[in-house]
Amino acid sequence: MFASSFAVLLRTAVLLVLVFFSVALPHGAVFAQTDPLPSWNDGAVKKSITDFVGRVTTQGDADFVTPAERIAVFDNDGTLWCEQPVYFQAAFALDRVKAMEVQHPEWKQQQPFKAFLSGDRKALGEQGEKGLLTLVAAAHSGMTTDEFATSVADWLASAKHPRFNRPYNELIYQPMVELLAYLRSNGFKTFIVSGGGVEFMRVWAEKAYGIPPEQVVGSTGVTKYQLDAAGRPSLLKTAKVQFIDDGPGKPAGINMTIGRRPIFAFGNSDGDHQMLQWTMAGSGPRFAGIVRHTDAAREYAYDRPSKIGQLDKAWDEAKAKGWTVVDMKSDWKTVFPFEK
Amino acid sequence: MFASSFAVLLRTAVLLVLVFFSVALPHGAVFAQTDPLPSWNDGAVKKSITDFVGRVTTQGDADFVTPAERIAVFDNDGTLWCEQPVYFQAAFALDRVKAMEVQHPEWKQQQPFKAFLSGDRKALGEQGEKGLLTLVAAAHSGMTTDEFATSVADWLASAKHPRFNRPYNELIYQPMVELLAYLRSNGFKTFIVSGGGVEFMRVWAEKAYGIPPEQVVGSTGVTKYQLDAAGRPSLLKTAKVQFIDDGPGKPAGINMTIGRRPIFAFGNSDGDHQMLQWTMAGSGPRFAGIVRHTDAAREYAYDRPSKIGQLDKAWDEAKAKGWTVVDMKSDWKTVFPFEK
Repeated sequence: MFASSFAVLLRTAVLLVLVFFSVALPHGAVFAQTDPLPSWNDGAVKKSITDFVGRVTTQGDADFVTPAERIAVFDNDGTLWCEQPVYFQAAFALDRVKAMEVQHPEWKQQQPFKAFLSGDRKALGEQGEKGLLTLVAAAHSGMTTDEFATSVADWLASAKHPRFNRPYNELIYQPMVELLAYLRSNGFKTFIVSGGGVEFMRVWAEKAYGIPPEQVVGSTGVTKYQLDAAGRPSLLKTAKVQFIDDGPGKPAGINMTIGRRPIFAFGNSDGDHQMLQWTMAGSGPRFAGIVRHTDAAREYAYDRPSKIGQLDKAWDEAKAKGWTVVDMKSDWKTVFPFEK
Repeated sequence: MFASSFAVLLRTAVLLVLVFFSVALPHGAVFAQTDPLPSWNDGAVKKSITDFVGRVTTQGDADFVTPAERIAVFDNDGTLWCEQPVYFQAAFALDRVKAMEVQHPEWKQQQPFKAFLSGDRKALGEQGEKGLLTLVAAAHSGMTTDEFATSVADWLASAKHPRFNRPYNELIYQPMVELLAYLRSNGFKTFIVSGGGVEFMRVWAEKAYGIPPEQVVGSTGVTKYQLDAAGRPSLLKTAKVQFIDDGPGKPAGINMTIGRRPIFAFGNSDGDHQMLQWTMAGSGPRFAGIVRHTDAAREYAYDRPSKIGQLDKAWDEAKAKGWTVVDMKSDWKTVFPFEK
């Protein structure tokens, strides 16, 4: 009996040791031998990321940062997913106006709807930027927040990207998805800070990136609280802008919504310039990264003169200050998840 | 040697068993025998809380809610801390105007500052509500966000509540602090959703309630991004209002910032009415609670006719719909932490 208890105890102890270590080791350490960023080619860019994360997560290192302060912010369009040939939210809005036509017979006689719906490019051009904004606003107002979320989900389920012929939410960048997961496994809290509409992104961001709704910061519209005849409340989306989370609006949005200065920020265009500056201006270790679109074969190539995702001033500052600049063509082994 | 290895192994196994169970058991279960809400008297109110939490956290229960959806929102003034005889942020603003007097010699000749600083109640009364708002705005604008946070911290370190003669941030409600911790230990994410200024609250909310800055939703002002001569960025607080997170603004603020409908909400006044309605209007299990101030001896007693924290319409709906209404006098064993 003594020997057999001993055997049981030995087995128990071994089992406990195994379980204990799998439970108690810092998250991620069990898989220390596996590359957490397999879609990134080895080189200075990848090393700048892993070195930074190593320093801020090593107890006793001069650059150690407590988990609560490990705030990482990411632009969305052009940084986490593709933004060409037009911002995907603009594609959604125009498709949506077409889908709404049946409920709006008056649009047949009303500009800019008439020009857009009849495909009259000349007449639409005459409506200018204001005409386009009216179309976008129509797709984003006059319905409840729940109805809007449904319209985004419906669109994602049916619309296809004109070049890649895939649902738009498949056009996310695999290396960035890995980076988000890597940061989270190292105690970071990951946020989106985008010029896009916050309600548009929240419909699909959690599934695409693992970022929950409460960690998505974006542009917002004014909503109106209303009760129906039965006393049921809803929020009506109006056409009035509440906040534009772009350019200098990004530090303002971070201050308003997150309330801490990030230590890690990633963008791709001049719309992210101030967010990167704001992140780098704090004390202690800081990381600023820029995705440069250099790969016309696998994605797109554009920078200084581009109308969408222009990268000019932020790039100059990145070069001057030694921020990390990702060259999509050489730094990314894979671009989209579906390539694998 | 065999016996001694065995002894070592036995000690190791016992130790591992102890460590293992303290690590691997669900959070809170180790203290299952301890009352997580010791400052709440036993009764229907306390039971309504623990029953709800039990149901939504029990796997297999029809009311089980996944942790990601366990969003709990709390009003601040009058719900988590005292709001009498005036909102503490108003007390801060008036103290702050006095402290700023030396930097503003022009105020000696300028209303409403002249009337306020000279203690001329009649002249100040003539300035009306607009005069008071001008004073409050002066304390909240014309400085950077960092400078403002410092001014709040300085005030908390020196100012005392007129009745309790203690720093304002000691006037938090012990039962609510316990409730917040209890919810978090059951997988809830706790948020403040307050009419108060978000930047005012974030300075002290984490220490007081364990709620991090990114989980504080409140009223906001417009900030202006600026670079100094050396290229260092800051955010200048302007006097322009960005968003008022009160009344119907609370569901709007929740939608804008959290992006999920809470399943648990607590307030104390008609300013929380729409937040409670919005919370209760979702599908699945829901909890709405109201703190009723009934204890003039230990705190204050006020409801329908009060100018601060008026509780009228929300109370009627709570009674009609069977929401939980806390009677401070009978439901709370302790009110403030310093009583213990």
